[in-house]
Amino acid sequence: MFLIADNLQITKPAIAKAIEARDPKPVMDLVSRCEAAGAQAIDVNTGPLSKDGEAKMAFLVECVQTACSLPLSLDTVNPKAMEAGLKLAKKRPIINGISLHPQKLKDFIPLAQKFDADLVCFLLKPDGHVPKDAPGRLETAVELVSALAEAGINGDRLIIDPIAAPLMWDDGGQQAVEVLETVRLLPEILGFDVRVMAGISNLTTGSGPLSKKLLMERTYLAMLQAAGLWCTLLNIFHAETVLAARAGDVLCSGKVFSWHF
Amino acid sequence: MFLIADNLQITKPAIAKAIEARDPKPVMDLVSRCEAAGAQAIDVNTGPLSKDGEAKMAFLVECVQTACSLPLSLDTVNPKAMEAGLKLAKKRPIINGISLHPQKLKDFIPLAQKFDADLVCFLLKPDGHVPKDAPGRLETAVELVSALAEAGINGDRLIIDPIAAPLMWDDGGQQAVEVLETVRLLPEILGFDVRVMAGISNLTTGSGPLSKKLLMERTYLAMLQAAGLWCTLLNIFHAETVLAARAGDVLCSGKVFSWHF
Repeated sequence: MFLIADNLQITKPAIAKAIEARDPKPVMDLVSRCEAAGAQAIDVNTGPLSKDGEAKMAFLVECVQTACSLPLSLDTVNPKAMEAGLKLAKKRPIINGISLHPQKLKDFIPLAQKFDADLVCFLLKPDGHVPKDAPGRLETAVELVSALAEAGINGDRLIIDPIAAPLMWDDGGQQAVEVLETVRLLPEILGFDVRVMAGISNLTTGSGPLSKKLLMERTYLAMLQAAGLWCTLLNIFHAETVLAARAGDVLCSGKVFSWHF
Repeated sequence: MFLIADNLQITKPAIAKAIEARDPKPVMDLVSRCEAAGAQAIDVNTGPLSKDGEAKMAFLVECVQTACSLPLSLDTVNPKAMEAGLKLAKKRPIINGISLHPQKLKDFIPLAQKFDADLVCFLLKPDGHVPKDAPGRLETAVELVSALAEAGINGDRLIIDPIAAPLMWDDGGQQAVEVLETVRLLPEILGFDVRVMAGISNLTTGSGPLSKKLLMERTYLAMLQAAGLWCTLLNIFHAETVLAARAGDVLCSGKVFSWHF
C-alpha cells in the first residue's frame, strides 16, 4: 500500500501561521515526522488558496522538499497554485485531483500534460456530487478515463479515487459497500491494471469516539486492500492504520512469509 | 460475523485435568468467560479422544450447556464421541467437520442426517492434503457439496471451511491469497448463498511475536469478511480480533451507520 500523508493542511492553525510568517520550521518538522511514521508521499493541502496562492504553494513545496525526499501530492483547486507547485517538484508529482467537473478538466488536463504528472481522478459526477452506488462510480470512471485518454493522458498516469464517503452520511453504510465493490471492479471495467486510492480519513469524518474511528479506519483499509486498493491518503500518525497497511501488504503479496515486515 | 470460540481444547493442561477429574468448574468458568468475550458458539475440541471418548464428550457438553446457552460446535474425529455430544445438544449443533476423506464421509454423513446438524465442510483432498490454490479448493467444494446433496443434506446445513493455512508454511503467503479468492468465489461456483467459515487462529500457528500475530489475524479477518466470510473460529480472548469482526459487520452491512456497535 502506497501511503500518502494527509497531515499537511492549511486548515491547521500551526500550519496557517507558519505560512503567514513564512516560517519553514513547523512545516519541515511536521514533514520529517510524517516521513518517520511511514509516509511515502506528502499531500500538500492548501485548499483554494484564494489570496497569494502561488507564493504559498511554492513556500510549502520548498519546505517539504527541504525536509524530505518524498514525492508530492499537490492538493488544491487553484490551477495557478497547482502550477507553481508542479514547477518546483523534484520528483514526479501527483495532481490531486481532477473530476468530470468541466472547470477541473479545463484547468488540470493541460497541467497534467505539461508536467507529465500523475493524476488523481475523483469519481464524482460533473456537478460534484458523489454517485450513489458502484455502477454510478464505474460509469463515471469510464467517462473520465476516456476524456483523459482523448487528451493523450495514459492510464498509467492515473490514480482513481472512488471517494470513500463519511459513514455518518445518511447512506454512509451503503456507500462503504459500494466503494468496496467499485475498487474490486475498476480494473476489469477499465480493462487495465489501474491504480486505485482512497482517502481513508474521510470515512470517519464528523463526531465520534476516536478509538472506534481508528478501528473503522484500519478495518475498512484492510477490506479495501484485499479488494485491490493501491494507495491511501491518511493521517500517517494513526500508527495502527499504518500497521494494518503493512500487514495487508504481506497478506496480499503471495510471497514467502516472514515476521520481518 | 458469527464467532465460534476455539478456547475449549483438551490439549490445554487445565482442561485435560478437569476432564480427568470430572471437575466441571474449570470448564464452566472458561465457557462463561468465552460468552462474556463475545462468543456466539463454543467449539468443543476433544481431539481423537481414543480412550473413554463418549463419556468425556458428554461431560464437556454438559459443562458447556450448564455454563451458557450457546450452541455447540463438536470438534472430534471420533464418531462415537461425536454422537454422544450430538445426543445431548439442546440447540442445533455443528459437526466440525467432514471432508472428502472416505472415512469421514462414512462416519459423519449418517450423524448429520440423524441429528439434522449443521456441518463444517473442510476443503481438503480425499487424502487430507490442503489444495494448493483456489481452483483446487473450489473443485473440492463442488465435489463435497454434491456428495452431501446426494445424501440428502441440504446446502443450508453446510458451512464451508476453505482451510486458512499457516502463514509459516512454505507456500503460506500464496495460500492466504488463494483462500481469499476461494471465499469470494464459493457462492458463485456453488450457485447458492453458502455460509463460509475460517479458523483464523490457524493463520499464525507456529512461533512468532504475539503482537504481530494479532495484527495479521485481525487484518486478514477483515479481508476475509469483505470477501464474504460468515463465521470464524477464533481465540475469543483476542479482543482486537473480536472488535475487527464487529467493525466488519458494520462496514459490510450497508445499514445506516451509528457509533453504537
